[in-house]
Amino acid sequence: MSLPRTNTQVLFASHPVGRLSEENFKISDGKVPELGKDDVLVRNIYSSVEPYLRVLMKRETSFGKTPYGNSFEIDTVLPARVVGEVVSSRHPNYREGDFVFGMLRWEDYSLAAGGQGLRKVDPTLAPLSAYLGALGPSGLTAYIGMLEVGNPQPGEVVYVSAAAGAVGQLAGQLAKLRGARVIGSVGSDEKVTYVKNELGFDEAFNYKKTSDLVATLRAACPDGINLNFENVGGENLDAALECICVGGRVVLCGTVSQYDADNPRGVKNLAQLVVKEARMLGFSVRYHEDQLPDFIAQMSEWLRSGRIKYREHITRGLKNGPAALIGLLHGQNLGKQILQIGDDSGASRQRGSS
Amino acid sequence: MSLPRTNTQVLFASHPVGRLSEENFKISDGKVPELGKDDVLVRNIYSSVEPYLRVLMKRETSFGKTPYGNSFEIDTVLPARVVGEVVSSRHPNYREGDFVFGMLRWEDYSLAAGGQGLRKVDPTLAPLSAYLGALGPSGLTAYIGMLEVGNPQPGEVVYVSAAAGAVGQLAGQLAKLRGARVIGSVGSDEKVTYVKNELGFDEAFNYKKTSDLVATLRAACPDGINLNFENVGGENLDAALECICVGGRVVLCGTVSQYDADNPRGVKNLAQLVVKEARMLGFSVRYHEDQLPDFIAQMSEWLRSGRIKYREHITRGLKNGPAALIGLLHGQNLGKQILQIGDDSGASRQRGSS
Repeated sequence: MSLPRTNTQVLFASHPVGRLSEENFKISDGKVPELGKDDVLVRNIYSSVEPYLRVLMKRETSFGKTPYGNSFEIDTVLPARVVGEVVSSRHPNYREGDFVFGMLRWEDYSLAAGGQGLRKVDPTLAPLSAYLGALGPSGLTAYIGMLEVGNPQPGEVVYVSAAAGAVGQLAGQLAKLRGARVIGSVGSDEKVTYVKNELGFDEAFNYKKTSDLVATLRAACPDGINLNFENVGGENLDAALECICVGGRVVLCGTVSQYDADNPRGVKNLAQLVVKEARMLGFSVRYHEDQLPDFIAQMSEWLRSGRIKYREHITRGLKNGPAALIGLLHGQNLGKQILQIGDDSGASRQRGSS
Repeated sequence: MSLPRTNTQVLFASHPVGRLSEENFKISDGKVPELGKDDVLVRNIYSSVEPYLRVLMKRETSFGKTPYGNSFEIDTVLPARVVGEVVSSRHPNYREGDFVFGMLRWEDYSLAAGGQGLRKVDPTLAPLSAYLGALGPSGLTAYIGMLEVGNPQPGEVVYVSAAAGAVGQLAGQLAKLRGARVIGSVGSDEKVTYVKNELGFDEAFNYKKTSDLVATLRAACPDGINLNFENVGGENLDAALECICVGGRVVLCGTVSQYDADNPRGVKNLAQLVVKEARMLGFSVRYHEDQLPDFIAQMSEWLRSGRIKYREHITRGLKNGPAALIGLLHGQNLGKQILQIGDDSGASRQRGSS
């Protein structure tokens, strides 16, 4: 296969001051890399657009690195989770035409040095993009966070924030599978309809139409919240804490409301953990990669049978990546936000003929 | 026994604006109450001065009542935990001369209607004041919070904030009994000496002399914090979270730094719970009253053998109660803050002759 010589790339250009903007990125023409021993060259097809990317765009704080690791370096290609197709390989485990998942970059072609961090994905099992969402990090996050960390019991009241997002849409359905009563918070009326009518949530509300979040939560959960699956943080978390039951738990998945700000608001209602003898349980998918095969087997079965549904919000073209991330931080996506980088017809054909 | 007719009382006079001040209290002469059926009249000897009292002096928020319950009503006698002597009783379980613990009030004589909430204490086992501290709510808080909720393992690094306070002084020693390495944060050099030299903490620092709390904690805990026994909240909690180990836990006992302010600062570093897969475990002694007899048996043995030590900071006279509470909120006490309301010579004599 002959490769083009230019490689469109999205660079991280500057630390945002206040909200992230397109000026913090630069679209650039790089070169398609040369392969050394054991290297693999991947044509990127889809990339996962995730809130944590914004955290890594912060300047390092007085504490040092950001919670998610060292800040991105200026003028480097943005690192991101990608699925793509191997177009050239000097690694014994990968061949041209293989489809792979890896931590690569926002560019047309990425070199995986020594094949590091790659793993093959099966294009006949699900659409390639699903390996970034429902069968990927978002799905594993919902699976571990809801079923293992949260462990909802039949009849418990589960409150999911960002309920129409990549993780929330799955987490809520998993709680329903366990027999819980599930309430979702979302940012548009369309999302309310989605999570109630398509996903089967028991209740949902548009927080942007609510002047009193605690009153809204109390109306939706008159007996309180047993389990808060928390993606948002800040004011939403304070309201959920106000309504938490004695012995309740908060599964802390993320605090996206705080990422696109220089000065996060802070959580002021932690005294509720004390007086309700409640627990806040942080977790991160990074510690659960070994559970991926079992997860994929189980989740692909649920997807096939229709017990779990999901939506994707696909933005096309590397140059639209920055706008997709900015939109994600302000809830403009419904479902998993994906950036399509390259043509997907090869994998689609394999799936169609399987 | 003939009773005086006047009863000095400390009333809650107004909601503080900003910091609590003596103007928010009123000293008043009330009447010694008359007894009805099953009532018990107690001559108050010691009262427990505790940070949560300040929370109940806040106006009710937009959320409704304070985390600790309904705000105190203006112009009522301040409710508080007390030990005292029964001076008159129409209740079959209590006789004149019995020593009792109860949720009573800041006044010379309190009526326990129907004997409610009273329990007898043994003046020969320990000084009466200990039933408010090391053998009382503070001790039970340290015992449950450290040994059951925190459950430190040998060799783990345990960080105790407000380490020379009523709960902290005990919690740190309990972690030492379990074989942990214990670091304390305190607010004066005298307290550093106390917790290191008298209580056997491995390390301690005066946070008021620290310009960079995270750097100080990192120096004291180079391998991170496995268990943070947290009494302070706010900035201290953010720094502890920055240093928490993967799989670490925060036992959330209280957030005293936030009580004496109209606008709490908020906790901004909860993302550390996510990326370290750490847990924040709230608990409250109110759910563990049934463990009190076992606790008293165990702790009084530790006190007798000298394995656990404590200090009390006794302020004398009801009229000095407000100043004692204000001082407590700003760390002016070393050890358990007690308000002495009445003469203790009767119980002291019984202990001396036992």
